[in-house]
Amino acid sequence: MVYTVIMAGGIGSRFWPESRKARPKQFLNVLGEATLLQNTLARMQGLVPAERCYVVTHERYVTQTREQLPALPPDNIFAEPIARNTAPAIAFAAARLLEQDPDATMIVLPADHLIRNVAQFHAVLRVALEKAEEPGALVTIGITPTHPATGYGYVQINHSGDLDDEVLRTYPVRTFAEKPNIATAERFLDSGDFLWNSGMFIWRADSILAQMQKHLPDAYEAFAPLYEQHDFSDEAVQEAYQKSPRISIDYGVMERARQVYLVPGSFGWSDVGDWRAVYDLSEKDAHGNALRNQVIMHDASRCLVRAGDRLIVLVGIHDTVVVDTDDAVLVCHRDSTQQVKNVVEYLHAHQLDEYA
Amino acid sequence: MVYTVIMAGGIGSRFWPESRKARPKQFLNVLGEATLLQNTLARMQGLVPAERCYVVTHERYVTQTREQLPALPPDNIFAEPIARNTAPAIAFAAARLLEQDPDATMIVLPADHLIRNVAQFHAVLRVALEKAEEPGALVTIGITPTHPATGYGYVQINHSGDLDDEVLRTYPVRTFAEKPNIATAERFLDSGDFLWNSGMFIWRADSILAQMQKHLPDAYEAFAPLYEQHDFSDEAVQEAYQKSPRISIDYGVMERARQVYLVPGSFGWSDVGDWRAVYDLSEKDAHGNALRNQVIMHDASRCLVRAGDRLIVLVGIHDTVVVDTDDAVLVCHRDSTQQVKNVVEYLHAHQLDEYA
Repeated sequence: MVYTVIMAGGIGSRFWPESRKARPKQFLNVLGEATLLQNTLARMQGLVPAERCYVVTHERYVTQTREQLPALPPDNIFAEPIARNTAPAIAFAAARLLEQDPDATMIVLPADHLIRNVAQFHAVLRVALEKAEEPGALVTIGITPTHPATGYGYVQINHSGDLDDEVLRTYPVRTFAEKPNIATAERFLDSGDFLWNSGMFIWRADSILAQMQKHLPDAYEAFAPLYEQHDFSDEAVQEAYQKSPRISIDYGVMERARQVYLVPGSFGWSDVGDWRAVYDLSEKDAHGNALRNQVIMHDASRCLVRAGDRLIVLVGIHDTVVVDTDDAVLVCHRDSTQQVKNVVEYLHAHQLDEYA
Repeated sequence: MVYTVIMAGGIGSRFWPESRKARPKQFLNVLGEATLLQNTLARMQGLVPAERCYVVTHERYVTQTREQLPALPPDNIFAEPIARNTAPAIAFAAARLLEQDPDATMIVLPADHLIRNVAQFHAVLRVALEKAEEPGALVTIGITPTHPATGYGYVQINHSGDLDDEVLRTYPVRTFAEKPNIATAERFLDSGDFLWNSGMFIWRADSILAQMQKHLPDAYEAFAPLYEQHDFSDEAVQEAYQKSPRISIDYGVMERARQVYLVPGSFGWSDVGDWRAVYDLSEKDAHGNALRNQVIMHDASRCLVRAGDRLIVLVGIHDTVVVDTDDAVLVCHRDSTQQVKNVVEYLHAHQLDEYA
């Protein structure tokens, strides 16, 4: 059977002051009427029923996850006692699913991405699911790049000539590349065989565990006993996480494994990485402003302004993000939104955790 | 005897959101540990005792004035039932003072200006007071201009050659000029005989009433009965204000009268006209930032940030004013602070008076 596993453990700090340790990005409504997590679950409708959708998250977010996803069976949350990056989270989920279904196939999805064209997304996933039935195969979704982005990792496939993303098919993966500088990103874009790394994976639970055993034995050995001994007690899970290395699935497994495949997709994807991305994805008025709640703009343009309970007034201000919350206000140039995470680091370093 | 009359009726809206209809500029602490009104009274110490200081203000500000000026005898507030600009306010104050002291000399001071060098200010006032003893003489203080300001009115004196403002003396006034454009302001500065109009006046109460009788008879006839009939009842004052034209003392009397004199002064004066002026007058850190309360600046410079109860964070922001209050936040370019008054007009015009 096919299962969705939503990875919702992130504590993303680039959406400060709306995102806080107690309310990370995936629980925020940054773009519309629902949160990113809610949208992630909702868009699986028609492909995987809610009963077969699971969320992996830190135990501190379990209540919030249940509140935001009333359609999700309450037990479909895998609570992590410690955040240890994606490889342990995936090992944990694979072990759990395998125990209940030796034939389990997982669609692993980040909880905080945007996808505009859900039908196309489903079509891509169907092709990926088919490939994932090959024993040992690890499949990822690559996003056909639209510009030389420096904020995404890239995946190079074995292919020459232009990609025709109208025809959905899989390609063998040659290599994974970290976030490039702009010159490299331009070269990637020109090459035609580099795609954006979406962080979405499709594989059989036994395939990923087998590959992990081979390429990331420390993590495998931490989580395999849970499955082998049918013991998913809090103590056993705690022990597994404590034993496990802190490593991403990309770095720990995908870059090292052989049977890695990619399905290219173009379905209006964004990882909604920072306030700038929210601005870009928002509907704008004639002055290029995206405004929420009570805002007055006087000679002000190309701004994202998210008022809370207060009136916000901008005068002679352009290309700026303003976000107001109960206890903090951010004013940030549109080109500096990546630096917001530094502010959160500063808060932690200066005994201002109450704001972090 | 010499009396101070502080004109505190302003409803200045350029300091929104800190200034509100219920709390205008003179009642704000924009520059230090005291409000502009408090500083105006305090700097008369040593020249005019508090018992001989009076405040003219709208009746809605009487309680606030008493609270801010505990040293002022509670009855030393002349409450205006209607705001009618400066000529009626001065006629009212002159009539009141004349009734108690036929020999009264008035030092008329705006409530919302900054003066750095109080000793020099007193020295200038002493020269003005001496001249004001001449029957019919109207004396004003002119500020030796330091740059071609377009935000001030100017006064031209009868004088040729450079002004030596080390030697304090009076000059006959030739003409008053409205706020000039930049080319005219530069010409004024080069001419050497144009000074900034400070809005400070020194005269005998009987002199200003006599000049008003001649040049602004409507206002005179509105207020003279109060004095002649010794009736300063609420009804009589109300009637006087209703009868009186709405006009400034500059336009109504000073520009028309003959015996008008000026003492030039250089005592670190500013009318603190807007947030830009507050920025210019504030102490700045190494990045040119003037910050109040809890503020974090990350790659941000040349800003004025006045936090209230909230944390304010600026990232990649320069030359900007941010003012946070309980119910409103202003983000304004440093060169656009004059437009803040337009925002207040907008609030009134759009049923947002609660914020005005």
